[in-house]
Amino acid sequence: MNDIFIHPTSLVETHHIGHGTQIWAFAQILKGATIGSQCNIGDHCYIESDVKIADNVIIKHGNKIWSGVMLNNGRFVGPSQLTATRQHLSVTHAVQSGATYNNRQWLVTTRIHEGASIRAGATVLAGTQIGKFSIVGAGAVVTKDVPAYALVMGNPAHVQGWVCQCGHPLSFDSHLAHCAICNLHYAKDGKVIKLIAF
Amino acid sequence: MNDIFIHPTSLVETHHIGHGTQIWAFAQILKGATIGSQCNIGDHCYIESDVKIADNVIIKHGNKIWSGVMLNNGRFVGPSQLTATRQHLSVTHAVQSGATYNNRQWLVTTRIHEGASIRAGATVLAGTQIGKFSIVGAGAVVTKDVPAYALVMGNPAHVQGWVCQCGHPLSFDSHLAHCAICNLHYAKDGKVIKLIAF
Amino acid sequence: MNDIFIHPTSLVETHHIGHGTQIWAFAQILKGATIGSQCNIGDHCYIESDVKIADNVIIKHGNKIWSGVMLNNGRFVGPSQLTATRQHLSVTHAVQSGATYNNRQWLVTTRIHEGASIRAGATVLAGTQIGKFSIVGAGAVVTKDVPAYALVMGNPAHVQGWVCQCGHPLSFDSHLAHCAICNLHYAKDGKVIKLIAF
Repeated sequence: MNDIFIHPTSLVETHHIGHGTQIWAFAQILKGATIGSQCNIGDHCYIESDVKIADNVIIKHGNKIWSGVMLNNGRFVGPSQLTATRQHLSVTHAVQSGATYNNRQWLVTTRIHEGASIRAGATVLAGTQIGKFSIVGAGAVVTKDVPAYALVMGNPAHVQGWVCQCGHPLSFDSHLAHCAICNLHYAKDGKVIKLIAF
Repeated sequence: MNDIFIHPTSLVETHHIGHGTQIWAFAQILKGATIGSQCNIGDHCYIESDVKIADNVIIKHGNKIWSGVMLNNGRFVGPSQLTATRQHLSVTHAVQSGATYNNRQWLVTTRIHEGASIRAGATVLAGTQIGKFSIVGAGAVVTKDVPAYALVMGNPAHVQGWVCQCGHPLSFDSHLAHCAICNLHYAKDGKVIKLIAF
Repeated sequence: MNDIFIHPTSLVETHHIGHGTQIWAFAQILKGATIGSQCNIGDHCYIESDVKIADNVIIKHGNKIWSGVMLNNGRFVGPSQLTATRQHLSVTHAVQSGATYNNRQWLVTTRIHEGASIRAGATVLAGTQIGKFSIVGAGAVVTKDVPAYALVMGNPAHVQGWVCQCGHPLSFDSHLAHCAICNLHYAKDGKVIKLIAF
C-alpha cells in the first residue's frame, strides 16, 4: 500500500484503495467506497460510500460520484455529472417525497463499462449504461443507454458515429471496419459493434 | 444552535444558519448569507453574501450559489449552475464594462420556488423563476420561467410534462389529473397547474 | 508583489502571479502556470502548469483550466468547462490509448481572446478559438471557433447575434451598427465584425 499517494489536504475515509492510486487536493472519499489500483482521482472530487471504481480509472478534477455509480476498468471521466437519482424524484427532505426517499427506491445503478470515456461538461442520467469503449462527447446529456464503441453527442445525446478502442473514428464499409492505427477489426450489426479476429 | 453541523474544513462566515443544518467539507459560505433550518450544504459549495436559502433545502456538492439567488423551502439542487448575471454582461474587470458593472445593474434575482428540484448538470439563467414543485431535468438550460409542477428538459429547456409534488408524472385527462401515490388532485388551465380539493 | 491576495487554504505553487491578483479558498494553481495582474481566481479552481492567463481575467469559482488553455486580457469565465483534449481521445491510462497519450498529441491549444466571456455551465471543446469580446451563452457547448463579437448559444453552439464590447446587443442596419451605450461603431462583413472609426 506504500505506493498510494494521498494529498495531505484530501479526506480519504475508505481503506479500499488499490496500489499506485493517486488522490489529489481537497478530494473527499467516503467510508466504504472502493477504488482500484492505478487510478487518478483529481482535486475537489467527492466520492460516496457505495461507489465502486475498478482499476486504471481517471476521475478528473471536480467530479462528484454518487452512490449507485459503478465504473469498470480503464476509463476517463472528465469534469462531468454522473447522476444517481431517478429523474422523477422531487424534493428529498420535504414531506412530499415521503416513502420514496426513505426506502432508497430512488437509488438506481449507473454503470460505466470498460474503457468508456465521459468528456467535460457531460451529464449522465441515473440508471443508464455507458457501453465499453464508448465516448460521451463534451456537453452531452445522456438519457438512455449508450452502445459499446459509440460516440454520442448533443442534448439529448444521440449516436454520431463509432470509435475504436483507441478512440479514433471507425468507418464501416458495409458491416466491417478497420482501425489503421491499432490494426483492430470490427463488425457492426445494427447498433451492436463487436471486435473480430481478422 | 448546537445541532448545527459544520465540517472542520469548511469556511462558514455567516451567523444566519438555522437549526439542524449540515455544512460539509471544503464549503465556503460568505458573511451575510442566510441559510434556514434542516438544510444540507454539500462539499465544495460556495454561497455568496446576498443569497437567501429557506428551510429543508438540499444543495448538492459543488454548487456555487451567487448573489441574487433566493431558494424557498424544500428543494433539491443537484450539481448545477444557478447564474446571477445578465446574459449580455461582458467582461467585468475590463474598462469596456464600465458603469454597467460598477452600479450592479447586472445583478438580477433568480428565484427558486418551494419544492422545486434542479437536477445535475442543469444551468439556470439569471432572472428566471423556477415554479413550485417543478423539476428542471438533468443537463437542461433554463432560459425562461418554468411553470409550477412542470418537468422541463433540453437546451434550451422546454416543458416535457407535469409532475406531482412527490415528483411522479401527472397525466391530465381533459384538465384534471390525480396522483395515485399521493392521492393529490390537480387542475390544468393552459400552463397553469393548481392543486385542488377533490 | 505585496498586493497579491492568496487565501490561506489555497495551494499556489507558481511564482508567476501579477500584482493585484486575488486567489480564493481551496484553489490550486500548479507550478509553471502564469497568471497576470488584477486577476480574480475563485474558490475551488484548479489551474494546470502550462496554462497562461493574461491580465484582468476573472475565473469564477470551480473552474478547472487544463494545460493548453490560453486566456488573453480582460475576460470573464463563469463556472464552465474548458477542455484541453481531443474529442476522439479515449481511455488514457489503459493500454489502448498507447502512443497517442504518451506523445501528448492529444494536447491541443484552446485560445480565449481578449474580452471574451464564457458563461455558466458552458463547455468549450479543445482546439477552438473564442473570438475577442464574444459571449458564450450559459449552457452552450462550443464545438467550433466563435467569431469576434458573436453571441453563441445552444448545444452545439450557434451564432444567435452580435454584441458590443460592453456586452449589449448590436443591430446591424445593412452592414453597420452602433452601440448607444458605448458610442462605438461596428462594420459587419459576413461573420467578420470590426470596430470602425465614425
